[in-house]
This record gives sequence, C-alpha cells and structure tokens, in this order.
Amino acid sequence: MVSVASIQQLFTPAFTVDIRKVKSNARKMTERCQTLGVQLRPHMKTHKTLECADIMTRGSQRCIVVSTLTEARFYADNGYDDILYAYPLPIDKVEACAELAERLEMFHVLVDSEVAVLELKRRRLRDKKSWLVWLKLDCNNGRAGVQPEDSKALVLAKFIADSEGMELAGVYAHCGNSYEATGVEEIQAVAQETTSATLKFVEKLEKAGVRRPRSSIGSTPSCSHPVSDMGRLNELHPGNYIFYDVQQLMIGSCQMDDIAVRVLTRVIGHYPHRNQLLVDCGWTGLSLHSLGKLPTGYAIIEGHPELKLVGMTQEHGKIESISGKLDFDKFPLGSLISLIPYHACATAAMHPVYYVHSEGKIIAEWRPTRGWLC
Amino acid sequence: MVSVASIQQLFTPAFTVDIRKVKSNARKMTERCQTLGVQLRPHMKTHKTLECADIMTRGSQRCIVVSTLTEARFYADNGYDDILYAYPLPIDKVEACAELAERLEMFHVLVDSEVAVLELKRRRLRDKKSWLVWLKLDCNNGRAGVQPEDSKALVLAKFIADSEGMELAGVYAHCGNSYEATGVEEIQAVAQETTSATLKFVEKLEKAGVRRPRSSIGSTPSCSHPVSDMGRLNELHPGNYIFYDVQQLMIGSCQMDDIAVRVLTRVIGHYPHRNQLLVDCGWTGLSLHSLGKLPTGYAIIEGHPELKLVGMTQEHGKIESISGKLDFDKFPLGSLISLIPYHACATAAMHPVYYVHSEGKIIAEWRPTRGWLC
Repeated sequence: MVSVASIQQLFTPAFTVDIRKVKSNARKMTERCQTLGVQLRPHMKTHKTLECADIMTRGSQRCIVVSTLTEARFYADNGYDDILYAYPLPIDKVEACAELAERLEMFHVLVDSEVAVLELKRRRLRDKKSWLVWLKLDCNNGRAGVQPEDSKALVLAKFIADSEGMELAGVYAHCGNSYEATGVEEIQAVAQETTSATLKFVEKLEKAGVRRPRSSIGSTPSCSHPVSDMGRLNELHPGNYIFYDVQQLMIGSCQMDDIAVRVLTRVIGHYPHRNQLLVDCGWTGLSLHSLGKLPTGYAIIEGHPELKLVGMTQEHGKIESISGKLDFDKFPLGSLISLIPYHACATAAMHPVYYVHSEGKIIAEWRPTRGWLC
Repeated sequence: MVSVASIQQLFTPAFTVDIRKVKSNARKMTERCQTLGVQLRPHMKTHKTLECADIMTRGSQRCIVVSTLTEARFYADNGYDDILYAYPLPIDKVEACAELAERLEMFHVLVDSEVAVLELKRRRLRDKKSWLVWLKLDCNNGRAGVQPEDSKALVLAKFIADSEGMELAGVYAHCGNSYEATGVEEIQAVAQETTSATLKFVEKLEKAGVRRPRSSIGSTPSCSHPVSDMGRLNELHPGNYIFYDVQQLMIGSCQMDDIAVRVLTRVIGHYPHRNQLLVDCGWTGLSLHSLGKLPTGYAIIEGHPELKLVGMTQEHGKIESISGKLDFDKFPLGSLISLIPYHACATAAMHPVYYVHSEGKIIAEWRPTRGWLC
C-alpha cells in the first residue's frame, strides 16, 4: 500500500486515474443512455477492477460485459451478476461457463456458430436452467459474428431459439469499425449502420416467429455520440469511455479534458549530444500501441507540445524536441513528466496497480484482475 | 494451480516454456562464457521468475542483473545476492537502493551522470559500507550512458573512484545496437566495437591512476556469437537468450529449435466469406511487438508457414492464408494453434503464469514478478 499523499510523490512509472474524470465520464454515459431510453451494460475490459465497475454500474453490481472468463469469475466472486461474456464461446470453456451459469442468476454467453450451440446443447444446465445465449452479429466490423443479411444468421438464431435448454437472450454487435472514423459525422454513420442492421435483423427474427431477443451494440466512439435510432435498441455496451485516451480524442469520441489516465514518469538521463532525454517509462509502462505514429510519438506529453516520445525499450523512453534544441534545464534529473496514453486499455493492461487521485491527492489504489483461466 | 497433464489441455491463451530448451540455452551460454573465461551475469528482465533465475545462475543465486527495483527486491527477498540494478539510477529511488545495498552483500547501482553520483554521496550507507557503482558506457547504442571517448566519461569515473563511501565497481555497456544486425558477421562487428571501446576506456582509466574496475557488456545477439576479445572483459550480461524468439532468429542469434516459448491459442471462429479464422489470442496474450511486419504477421504460426496472423485486438487474433483459400477443415473450432512470439520479453510480460513443460507434459508453473515499486 502506498504511503504517499500526492501523485507527485509516487515512484515511477505509475499509472494514475483521475477519479473526478472517471465519475464524470460514467455519469455522462449513464445520462446518454437514460436520454435514449436504453440500458447501459458497461464493458469491464479496459480497467478490470471492482472499484471502477461499481462506478460504472452505479453500485448495482449488475449488467456488465466482460472479455475473459477470468474477469467473469472475478466479478461473480465479488457479488456481481447479470454478466455477459461477450466473446465467441471457446468450446474448451463450456464447462467453466456452465459453472458460472449455474451459480449466477444471469450469466450470458455469446456464439456465432452452430458448433458452439451444439456444444452448449451437450452440456445441459442443472435445475432446468436455460443457457442465456446471445448471437453475435458482424455489422461490417469484420471480426467475430454472423453477417445479419446472410440467411445463415436467421437459421442459427432460430436454432438457438428452438433448442431445448437455451434461450436466444439477445443479439450483439460491436461497431469496432467506428475506430476507423474521424469526427462525429463519421462515427455516427457507423453507429447508424450498425443500429439499422441490428434492428433489421431483430425484425426479421420476429417475422420468422422468433421471440424478440434483446439487442445491444457498443463501442466507445458510437456510444459517445449516439444516433437517435440507438434508442430503439435495448442496451449499449461501451467500455473504454470510463478512461478515454488519445486514440478516442483523435477519433472525436472525447475532449482532452475527459481523458482520466496518465503514466507518470521521471527524467533519468540527459544526452545533449543527441538532443534527447531518457525517462523511466518504456513499453512495459505504456505499451507500443500508438506504434509511435502520433505527431508526439508514442504518447502526448502533458503540457509539453514541443516534446516527442520517439522511442521505447523495456524500461526506457527517449524524448526529444520536435524542433530545435531541447532545454534540459527545464527537465532536471528526477523531474516528473506526465504521459497521456494512446490506448488506455493497452496501457492499463501493463499495470498491476492504478493510483487513483482527486486533484493530485491519492485516495485509493485499484488492483485489476489479469490473465486467463488456469 | 493447473490440474492438467499436458499443454494440449491448457486453457488458452497460455504461455508455455519448454524446459529442455531453456536448460540447453542456459548451458550453451554458460559454456560460451567458460570458454571465453568470463563471468556470466545473466539478466532477469525477460522472465522475472525465481525458477528460471536458478537455472541461469546454476543454483548459485548470485551474480544477476535486473531492470527494475521490483525485480531486485524479489530476488533479494528470495535469497539472491550480488545483484546489479543495471539502470540509470533514478534519483527518487536512492533510498530504496540504499536499503538493498545495506541488506545484501553486494547490490550494485549504475550511473551515467554527476547528479546521480552526488545523490549517492548524500546518502552514506550504514556500517561503513561502500556504494558499488558501475559507470554506464554508451558504445554507439544511443540510449543511456556516457560516451567512452568523451573526456567527461573519464572525469565522471574518477569522481566516482575518488568519492568517499563509494567504489567504482565496474563499467557496463549494453550493445543494443546488435539488434540492428543481421547475421553473425554484423552481430560480431557490433560485439567487437563495443568490446574494444569498453576495454579502451578501462585502459584509459588505469593510465589515469584509477583502480581497474570490472567490465561487462551484453545483449543476446553479441553473447550468442561472442568475439574472442570478449574474453578480455570480466562479465557478460545477456538475458533474452534463455527463451530466444523470432526477433533473435531473424537477427541470427539462434536457430528456430532454440526458441523455448510459445503462446498456445485456440480457433474460436471461421469466417469463410473473408477467408479468415479467429483465435483466442489478442495483444493481451502476445503484445504488438512485431508490429505485424513479419511475413507471417504478428508471430510465426508453428507448423503452418501458409498462415499469417494479420491482426489483433484485445482478445482476438485474425489468421488468414498467405495465398489462396484457407482450408477450414484443418482448423476446426477448438483446435490448438501454437504461436512463436516475435519478442519473448514483451510476450512474457503479458502473462501472470508460465506453463513449463517437458515434451508437452506440464511439470511446473512459474509466476513472474511484475510492476514497479509501490
């Protein structure tokens, strides 16, 4: 447990979370969903902590999405319920899913293949419980899912709905292609396309005599700038919005002031002969996710638009001046530099502890769950 | 604790370590150093486990290098000594270093600036103990260190040697520029250049009346193909060689058969309309370190030169055929795929557990230390 009072005193590198921004981001997303009249089912994959989950669920500890079974168990073990494991059901993990489905009131699984459905059918749940099965739709994102316009999608949905021991609980689309957008207009075009395709599929199901399942789409860009038709869905499931990051800023999902996380680092070396300084944050503290392609390199250096993080090795970061000579006197050895991460999910994933602060004063440490079933 | 007998039964994604290859890599490096007549001081940063450290030190638990103070404490708390914290001394961590220096028989620190030496001088060690200070040399690598041909390097070395309460224990160079090499000849050119520059500096020190410090250079490429002059140094400090990886293979440090680590993943989806399958390993299980630039994408897919890992998100990997149609029947849902990582340090860093096997039979789980001082 940290014994220091302020983030300036932390050993570096350190991942910091501004609690006021987190709460503000949570509140705004909740309000957006309330305005639309849809349920918010926040995704836990960005932070993987109990404390942040409580903020995102406003203390209800219900109605969340997870990306791994380790997260599912972590939240289940800590009083959470109504957990959607929004991942194409890995057939080696059916038994682990069954354990959760039997333990919780609502544990939802997701499929996009007949094979997965058959595996679920082979494992009937105890006490006449039904598997709560969501069908993953691929609405032009090109990752997992059945294409809703493909006739096989309807066949698979009916197969789930008609199978004993399971229920077609919902249809689910991730508009990850909103990450290709720049600006609200492009984000909303993707949001609209995904929403329309999802709603059209649900209507097709109803026409085919299938009981209308719940419908959910998500991605931080689309849920940060929702289109009105999203009010016709049942749920939204964004995740990254709780922290935001430079990637979201560049897409247009958020403003700079919304980004709640930083990596604090300190100057550990001056190298005037090559106009560079070194800081004690490498890719273990930040990740390589920007690929160094930002105008400011691997991150934005808070308060120093003149600086560029040009390279990283395991524990070292190299910073230089974008143009002209670096003023080393401004950055004495030991001085703090604050990096705004490109991809908060990836940066958070590198840290076993998050230092949570309010106006720089440390108020908590959050410890995420990590890894996979073992 | 895992209850399965073979790596085929592991939940995926899973990081696996072939113990025979690890032991063979360790043995070969030890033999190389014995032939040269230098001390091997293995670097712990790649694996960060006790078990692997024991193999690398042949049970002596002495004479290691670490990249973080968390590693230093982890090894010190578990009976290790003679630990070199080969990192430009962060001045916020002097007190933490002093604690280790006072506790251990030999805890070495490294500096490349007068400021750092002054900070050490301000914190005298108890019981008349001396700080064991290594001077970091930058022999054309361009990261940390003083340039040995710069007159300031000699001044700084003398300042350390002449300061009360400290000892110039060694000079240290990391030939990270060997990572730019391809093939033994280019690797050895860097090894020779670094060795010559280091030896020349040590001779300059002696001529200036400074007691000859130990000398150490390292990097897995250079230590895998040492030049004979490296026998005139005192120590070598490679780290990655214990696992090796595709990057080292491409540099020419190792053969394919030497690479001891894999990420096991399973097929979770078939998408014939775009000729792709999905696996349950994303960047959380592999890292993005190849930047996708290998002919086979983000990794080499063992036994399948026809496949390419073309993209990764947090928990998903997309695999397609390098040319022509993918034969989906060969990769049914749930089937195992073995990824050979591009950068073992980066991939290991994503895993809280390493599954250690001998010919596929699981014999141990290793749990690395992670993070930084807190």
